[in-house]
Amino acid sequence: MTEDAKIGTYEFVAEPFHVDFTGKLTMSVLGNHLLNCAGFHASDRGFGMAFLQENHYTWVLSRLAIELDEMPEQYEKFSIQTWVENVYRLFTDRNFSLLDKDGKTIGYARSVWAMISMETRKPADLLTLHGGSIMDYVCDKACPIEKPGRIKMTSSAPVAEYQTKYSDIDINGHVNSIKYIEHILDLFPLSQFKEKRVRRFEMAYVAESYYGDTLSFYQEQVNEDEYLIEVKKNGTEVVVRSKVIFS
Amino acid sequence: MTEDAKIGTYEFVAEPFHVDFTGKLTMSVLGNHLLNCAGFHASDRGFGMAFLQENHYTWVLSRLAIELDEMPEQYEKFSIQTWVENVYRLFTDRNFSLLDKDGKTIGYARSVWAMISMETRKPADLLTLHGGSIMDYVCDKACPIEKPGRIKMTSSAPVAEYQTKYSDIDINGHVNSIKYIEHILDLFPLSQFKEKRVRRFEMAYVAESYYGDTLSFYQEQVNEDEYLIEVKKNGTEVVVRSKVIFS
Repeated sequence: MTEDAKIGTYEFVAEPFHVDFTGKLTMSVLGNHLLNCAGFHASDRGFGMAFLQENHYTWVLSRLAIELDEMPEQYEKFSIQTWVENVYRLFTDRNFSLLDKDGKTIGYARSVWAMISMETRKPADLLTLHGGSIMDYVCDKACPIEKPGRIKMTSSAPVAEYQTKYSDIDINGHVNSIKYIEHILDLFPLSQFKEKRVRRFEMAYVAESYYGDTLSFYQEQVNEDEYLIEVKKNGTEVVVRSKVIFS
Repeated sequence: MTEDAKIGTYEFVAEPFHVDFTGKLTMSVLGNHLLNCAGFHASDRGFGMAFLQENHYTWVLSRLAIELDEMPEQYEKFSIQTWVENVYRLFTDRNFSLLDKDGKTIGYARSVWAMISMETRKPADLLTLHGGSIMDYVCDKACPIEKPGRIKMTSSAPVAEYQTKYSDIDINGHVNSIKYIEHILDLFPLSQFKEKRVRRFEMAYVAESYYGDTLSFYQEQVNEDEYLIEVKKNGTEVVVRSKVIFS
């Protein structure tokens, strides 16, 4: 298989309700599109949710890092490319590039996924799945942004609390991965997005939260443009950690 | 022009992050798709936002009513048809039908729009626009659901309060029409959506709200399955009214 054939390309348009007050696509909608592209690409190659669920396995998103020079504007076309960078026994690295209406690359993203058994919740061995054929899709296309790092913060007092509601909950009964992105960016005042834009956004998905959980948001400003956020459920367990870098 | 040529048809798939915990498309995502289809259909006929904005006019959504027998399931294809039912001097009625993966009609929607001047905020005369050519698109396809009615409630104490945040705000600086749907359905406990489904959902958009406004939600249960909701901003002005009928 050529390297090009290993890359999936998907077309989008920035819809009116998918842009923020600056007229640019929101980070949560971009995140949604990236995860959908991951799904399309995996399905087309026999590793999609439908195949996995028949076999009582499911993909679990562990890390996501998005780094952008620009965001598409309302009504603009854009496209997302995705490919598999690495497959380890328990994790796989899937990368993305974001292309503007003219086909110019305006950003990249990295994601890390595990596969778990839906019965035992234990991780599956990716190298033996489908007789190891997932390795055939590993692609050497460059993804020149830093890997998602370890986010370590000194917890202080929460800056916000939120009780999860009907529209936060996905088909698995969990708060969905995209809603966390929305809630985290909602910690910042509107003025922050007037003066700056999000250059890099990182998420580490640590544990699941459920309907009715109270999420506490801890925030730490590392330097002028860099913030760490930790979300705990019900005052104790860490659910997600995030790093937001503005520019 | 044949009646068929007056109808726009648009294809969709129910994406994973667009379904709720029951695995069905959410009402807010369906609302988003309906409004997008309105936009596509109007643009294709020369009455889209781009044309209007050049002329310093904009479409304003006044009423929306959605009534459904079923909702598409995760990963299912579905399509939305839209057409113009009536054009009056100050309002136009645009209808929709929702078709499942097999092309069976599973629901309808009605919307009412005004066109206003972006400078004076005053309504424009639709009958003179483009030399009255909007009348050419009036279509007699049936839409067998009730028109959105007057929602009148006896205000009591608010059941919830919410301060609008970054992700509520659209390119016009207003809380976006879709976010209200989400906030209103979030008033109901998850158990309500386990036992019942939303059969009919009505929205009346009365005034705009902005970043940082405090929205108060008033709720009245009219009978076993019917609820009225009124949203006020900053304790006084009504912003939207809604009726939710479960079955």
